[in-house]
Amino acid sequence: MFSTSPTYICTLFMQKASLVKGTRDFGPVELSKRNYIFDIIRTVYKSYGFAPLETPAMENLSTLTGKYGDEGDALLFRMLNNGDILESAKQNLSDNNQLKNAITDKGLRYDLTVPFARYTAMNRHALKMPFKRYQMQTVWRADRPQKGRYREFWQCDADTIGTNSLVCEMECIEILDSVFSQLNIPVTIHINHRKLLEGFAQSIGFGDNFRDFTVAIDKLDKIGFEGVLREIESKGIGTEALIGGRELLKAHIFSLETIESLKGTLQQNILAQEGLTELTAVLKLMGKVKNDVVLDMALARGLSYYTGTIFEVKPTAASMGSVAAGGRYDDLTAIFGVNDISGIGISFGADRIFDILNENNGFPDTLNAYADVIICPMDEAVLPYATDTARQLRAQTQKAILVYPQSAKLGKQLDYANALDIQFAIIIGSNEMEQDIYTLKDLKTGAQSQLSLAAIISQMQ
Amino acid sequence: MFSTSPTYICTLFMQKASLVKGTRDFGPVELSKRNYIFDIIRTVYKSYGFAPLETPAMENLSTLTGKYGDEGDALLFRMLNNGDILESAKQNLSDNNQLKNAITDKGLRYDLTVPFARYTAMNRHALKMPFKRYQMQTVWRADRPQKGRYREFWQCDADTIGTNSLVCEMECIEILDSVFSQLNIPVTIHINHRKLLEGFAQSIGFGDNFRDFTVAIDKLDKIGFEGVLREIESKGIGTEALIGGRELLKAHIFSLETIESLKGTLQQNILAQEGLTELTAVLKLMGKVKNDVVLDMALARGLSYYTGTIFEVKPTAASMGSVAAGGRYDDLTAIFGVNDISGIGISFGADRIFDILNENNGFPDTLNAYADVIICPMDEAVLPYATDTARQLRAQTQKAILVYPQSAKLGKQLDYANALDIQFAIIIGSNEMEQDIYTLKDLKTGAQSQLSLAAIISQMQ
Repeated sequence: MFSTSPTYICTLFMQKASLVKGTRDFGPVELSKRNYIFDIIRTVYKSYGFAPLETPAMENLSTLTGKYGDEGDALLFRMLNNGDILESAKQNLSDNNQLKNAITDKGLRYDLTVPFARYTAMNRHALKMPFKRYQMQTVWRADRPQKGRYREFWQCDADTIGTNSLVCEMECIEILDSVFSQLNIPVTIHINHRKLLEGFAQSIGFGDNFRDFTVAIDKLDKIGFEGVLREIESKGIGTEALIGGRELLKAHIFSLETIESLKGTLQQNILAQEGLTELTAVLKLMGKVKNDVVLDMALARGLSYYTGTIFEVKPTAASMGSVAAGGRYDDLTAIFGVNDISGIGISFGADRIFDILNENNGFPDTLNAYADVIICPMDEAVLPYATDTARQLRAQTQKAILVYPQSAKLGKQLDYANALDIQFAIIIGSNEMEQDIYTLKDLKTGAQSQLSLAAIISQMQ
Repeated sequence: MFSTSPTYICTLFMQKASLVKGTRDFGPVELSKRNYIFDIIRTVYKSYGFAPLETPAMENLSTLTGKYGDEGDALLFRMLNNGDILESAKQNLSDNNQLKNAITDKGLRYDLTVPFARYTAMNRHALKMPFKRYQMQTVWRADRPQKGRYREFWQCDADTIGTNSLVCEMECIEILDSVFSQLNIPVTIHINHRKLLEGFAQSIGFGDNFRDFTVAIDKLDKIGFEGVLREIESKGIGTEALIGGRELLKAHIFSLETIESLKGTLQQNILAQEGLTELTAVLKLMGKVKNDVVLDMALARGLSYYTGTIFEVKPTAASMGSVAAGGRYDDLTAIFGVNDISGIGISFGADRIFDILNENNGFPDTLNAYADVIICPMDEAVLPYATDTARQLRAQTQKAILVYPQSAKLGKQLDYANALDIQFAIIIGSNEMEQDIYTLKDLKTGAQSQLSLAAIISQMQ
């Protein structure tokens, strides 16, 4: 806290300043852009009655490990235990994992799902179901950093738990549509259903090899249909029936016609019929959406986790991967001893969205990272008058008012204002002060006028 | 990212869910309260032209260590290096610090000041001076947790660097006043100046023992004047002159009269005169403020760090410590090789402010953590109608609309709404649907009326 300020006493030598690999500073411009994205997502989440939750950066390792597979465990950032670790270390030198477990018991959160499950389990008696929460926080993974992949990045999740109502599925689709419409990123929202996919697999003879099947078709985008066939053959499984079902793996507009057609094709399979019946109900609850929504039976992401409807959102233009995803799952909290809580969630990939908007100049021009107005005092004598002007503007408008805090040549002050992308300058010299009039300059258009403060205030409102 | 969802494959046993000691979850209610505080601070910072900055949670240990004294270094959370640490550990078992340094190179930020200095040094060629930034992020310290002291907590800092204009000092005082006025927490803003205090110390013969002197008078609040005298005596320093100067250590209203009087008393001392001249200029720039502002020569906090004006804010009522503080410093970035950048900063103690408001019921009644409106469908048949109503309300108002996602007895739905502190319920049964009319119930007053959707929308705007 501020009560123990850095003292710098012990530092006698200069240091080269650097960031931890894979992490980023968000300066004013980047942060204004990021917050533009977050504000849209947050506003939509809130408008659907999701309540905010934040959990600590650190979790006990017992909460984190074993949830993300061995690969995930290796990518956890672990905190070294504080105090003396020497003895613990000495007694646990037989292998790397044993040593790590002996000297660490906390780690940084790896996603927002496990902390949410932990929170739900701890507060199960106080939480009213259905519980709708959104959570927008950083997560950390010790991945090898590369373009678009960071060790510290953001997740923007919303989940509804404690109900299996299909209203939730409909809301997920509307939220995905609303966010990308507001961001002006055309997308296709891909929908599938675990039961439909499992039924389809059964119907073409992959019932016993469902996992291999989903792993293969999940790569359809990348390796094409021939690649999928080769991958399945390599497992020693026949592919004739899949070749026959090729048409079914193409995405079709999510409509009653599409569903009816699939119902006919898969009429022998009970699981598929169940999935299609649910999707029909979801469709009937849906309002008009602006983006394309497709039923995509090749969408197989995370099926070991999801149990009902699954979503994945892909930008129409960019060849980038998905920018949002989600689905229905069961028993999120079972691992913490709380059973029978069905849930459904979606998550936006904020960093990819940021990159897309940045590359397409998709951020609005009006994001002002610094201030709306700069007040330029022309000499020391007018400084109190200038700061008082700022005070009145702050009291009567919502604008961010920056006072150039010392006198300087006007050119220097306006260069500063332009560098900070500030639109309006109020220039105050002795003349202005004596005549109680202000020079207002629009730095974007160059327009300049002499106005009373009241006129400026009414213009700023 | 969402592309690698937890699989839960490996987990075959139940776990007890728990938090890391000294950390907290912020559920919807706590988070709404916290954000109420943050929004006020952020809005005031922005209105003065401070721009937002966020830095990563992790910094290189070379950035962090040596900045907070040995005690601070011991309280850093260090991240265990990823990959194989076994060999490094085996070769560095001679002492605890050597071992820690061998297997860690990153740590969690301990405050926002050092990351800000690191950011400034790294971006010195791009930053336009003066640079005003605010930063509101968590910091982590491996302190022993106790009431009101957490291992993860928030700091809310604003700094202006690259100018020694006293406009900044004035702005700090106004910001401190504005935030606590809006929070409805009466406070006293204590002001001192390092030169004034050092001049005073010289004038009573403590020029050579300035450090001992400040450490002692910094405890005046806790141990009283007699305690301060004993502490100074224990260092083998005479106290007669201090007894003579006792009156000067009392806080007086920050006014021209107070300053003039001190100027007279300390007229022999050049340093004190310089400090008082600066304070006079600050006072003349100040607008009217609502809280008490006092010149308090017993305020000696962090003097090894601060070089000019110092601030500390104490609640008038609570016997709690300070709730905000700050001051002018020189050469924040010198440690990273960038010299001659004067700066001034303030910081709010968000956790203490939270506790004060919580204890005094100081949060507004209108914070709605969950939603503004709940829509209650009386049977399954009206669900599509209910969700469509929600859609229209969302499109035409800013309200958060929660649809109870399945039919249930009205009592159950209203209990749920009350538990979530939702003010308005829109009840929809078959009758309402057929007549295109809605029952709107105010759950705070119990008032109930039958309205058209247009009427509800106009009421919600």
